[in-house]
Amino acid sequence: MTAVPASITDGRALVDAAMRASAERLDPWTRRVVAYHLGWTDEHGRPAAAGGKALRPALALLSARAAATPQETALPGAVAVEFVHAFSLLHDDIMDGDRTRRHRPAAWTVFGPSAAILGGDALLALSEELLLDEQTRGAHWAARALTAATQRLISGQAFDLGFEQRGDVTLDECLTMAADKTGALLACACSIGAMLGEGPTRLVTALAEFGAEMGLAFQLVDDLLGIWGSPGTTGKPVLSDLRARKKSLPAVYALTAGTAESDRLAELYAAPEPPSEDDLREMARLVEAAGGRDWAAAEADRRVASAEKHLADSGMDDAVRAEFRDVARFVTSRDH
Amino acid sequence: MTAVPASITDGRALVDAAMRASAERLDPWTRRVVAYHLGWTDEHGRPAAAGGKALRPALALLSARAAATPQETALPGAVAVEFVHAFSLLHDDIMDGDRTRRHRPAAWTVFGPSAAILGGDALLALSEELLLDEQTRGAHWAARALTAATQRLISGQAFDLGFEQRGDVTLDECLTMAADKTGALLACACSIGAMLGEGPTRLVTALAEFGAEMGLAFQLVDDLLGIWGSPGTTGKPVLSDLRARKKSLPAVYALTAGTAESDRLAELYAAPEPPSEDDLREMARLVEAAGGRDWAAAEADRRVASAEKHLADSGMDDAVRAEFRDVARFVTSRDH
Repeated sequence: MTAVPASITDGRALVDAAMRASAERLDPWTRRVVAYHLGWTDEHGRPAAAGGKALRPALALLSARAAATPQETALPGAVAVEFVHAFSLLHDDIMDGDRTRRHRPAAWTVFGPSAAILGGDALLALSEELLLDEQTRGAHWAARALTAATQRLISGQAFDLGFEQRGDVTLDECLTMAADKTGALLACACSIGAMLGEGPTRLVTALAEFGAEMGLAFQLVDDLLGIWGSPGTTGKPVLSDLRARKKSLPAVYALTAGTAESDRLAELYAAPEPPSEDDLREMARLVEAAGGRDWAAAEADRRVASAEKHLADSGMDDAVRAEFRDVARFVTSRDH
Repeated sequence: MTAVPASITDGRALVDAAMRASAERLDPWTRRVVAYHLGWTDEHGRPAAAGGKALRPALALLSARAAATPQETALPGAVAVEFVHAFSLLHDDIMDGDRTRRHRPAAWTVFGPSAAILGGDALLALSEELLLDEQTRGAHWAARALTAATQRLISGQAFDLGFEQRGDVTLDECLTMAADKTGALLACACSIGAMLGEGPTRLVTALAEFGAEMGLAFQLVDDLLGIWGSPGTTGKPVLSDLRARKKSLPAVYALTAGTAESDRLAELYAAPEPPSEDDLREMARLVEAAGGRDWAAAEADRRVASAEKHLADSGMDDAVRAEFRDVARFVTSRDH
C-alpha cells in the first residue's frame, strides 16, 4: 500500500472546516443530504467519520503554494472544486443507478432521487457563490475556470451515458470522454489556487496540463481496478465494470483492437441477457488477451510521465513540485 | 383576455437569437434536450414554434432601460435568467413527476430523467458562464445576484417537496416558500439589466422589490388558476392542484383558517386514497368557503399595489415605469 502523501492529509482539517462553514449556507433540508453525501453524518443525521480523501482540495491548496502564496488563498477554490465534484457524484449515482458510494448507500437511495437532485443543484450554485464572494481578479479567473470545467464534466457524463447505447465507441472518443469527465476538474483543482493567488499564466497553464494528464492516468487506473481491483478496496463487486458492460478504457481498447478476442468480447457486450459469472471471467480474460490491460497500464505510466514533464516546465519551487509529483504517483498507483 | 404588453413581445427576437447562440456552447447531446425543453424543436429534433412567453428576459431588458442604458446591455442577464428558469423547470418536472409542460410532454418523459438532469445542470453552469464572460463590474454584480436567486429557488423547491409530507404547513411558511421559489428569480430578472448597466443601488433595490412582490402576486394567481382555471389555458387537468393535494396558498389559507370547512378539508387532504371527482369538487368548495379564494385574490391585488409602489420609489423614467406596471398587471390578471 502506497502511503498517503502528507500534502493530502495536512490540509484536510483546514478544508474540512471551510467546507462545513460553507455548507451552513444551505437550507436545512438540502444540507442534510449534502452532509450525508460528504460523509459528515449517517442516514439519521448523526455525526459520522466517513468522507473521501479530499484529493481535489489538497491539490488546490498545493497550487496556491506553487504560486508562492499561502495555501489559505486557495480555500474558496478548494471548497468550490470539492463541491462541484460532490455535485457530479450525487447526480451521476442517480443517472447510473449506482446504489453504493464509498462503501455506504448512495444518497439518492437514502433520501430519494428528488433530494439528491436538489442537493447537487445547491452544491453547484454554492460553489459559484463562494468564488464570486471573493471579488478579486484571481477569484474571477478561478470562477471562469471552474465553470468551464463543470461544463466539460457534464458533457463527459452526457457522452458516457450515450456510450451505453452504442456498439461503435472508438478509443479516441473514450479518451475524450475521460478527459472531460475526470481530467477537466482535476486540471482545475491543480491550478485554481494559483489563479486565486494570481500567479503567472505560464504556471497556471502548466498546472492545468499536469492535472489533465494526471486525471487521465487516474481514470485509466480506476478502469483497471474496475475490472481487476479487489472489492475490499474498490467498494464495488468484483468485475463490476464488466458486469455493467461499461465502455471503460481497457475494454474499448480490447473491443477495437481488431483481434479474434475483440470479436468475442463484442459478442458478450452485445448479448441480450446479463453476463453470467463464467461470462464475466471470460470477458476479463478477453480484455487482457486483446491487450487492453497492458495498454491501459502503459498508457497510465505515459500520462504520469507527461504530467511530471509539465511540472518541470512550470518554473515552480522544487519542494512543491515534489509534492505534486508524489500526489500524482499516489493516486495512480495500482497497489491500493 | 388581457393583451400581451409590447414589452414582452418586442424584445423576444433579440433574446431568442442570443439564447440560441449561447446554447451552441452545449454539447450536441445536451443541446438536443435543451432545444426541446425551450420549445425550439419537437421530439425528433425538427424545428418547432412552441416556447414560453419569455417573461423573465423581457423584464431583464426593461430593467436595463430603467437604468438608462440600451436594452442590449441586459442580454447576457436576460439569457442567464431564462436559462436558470429552464434549469429549474427541467429538474422540477422530474421531482414532481409532472409529465406535461406547456401542452407538450415534459422533457424527461421524452429523453429520460438522466438527460433532463444533465440538461438542467448544463443550463445552470452555462448561465453563470455567460455573466462571467462579460468581465465588467456590473456583470459581477449580476452573477452574484443570480447565484443568490438560484440558491433561493432551490431552497424553495426543497421546502415545497417537504410540504408534501407534512400536515402542519403554516401560511407564513407557504409565503416564504413562494417568495423563494417564484419571487427570487423574478426579482433578479427585474433588476439584472440595471446591474449590468451599473445603475444606482437604489434603483436596483427598488426593481428587485418590485419583482419580488410581483412574483408573489403571480404565484397567488397561478395557485388560483391551479384550482379554478380552465384546462384550455392552464394546460393542466381541471382542479389539478387539488387532485395532487398541493399545499398551494389558497389551500393552506383555508386549511389554517380554523373554520369547520378547514377541518373537513384537512380530512380530505389526509385521506389515504386519491380524491374522487366528488371529493375534488367538495375540496374546491371548502377552500372557497373557508375564505381561501377571496384571500388569495385580495392578497394578489395587494402585492401588485405594493409592487407598483416600489416602482414609484425607484426614480426611473415614467415611460419605462408604465411598461413595468403593464407587465405586472398582465402576468397577474386572472382572465387568462
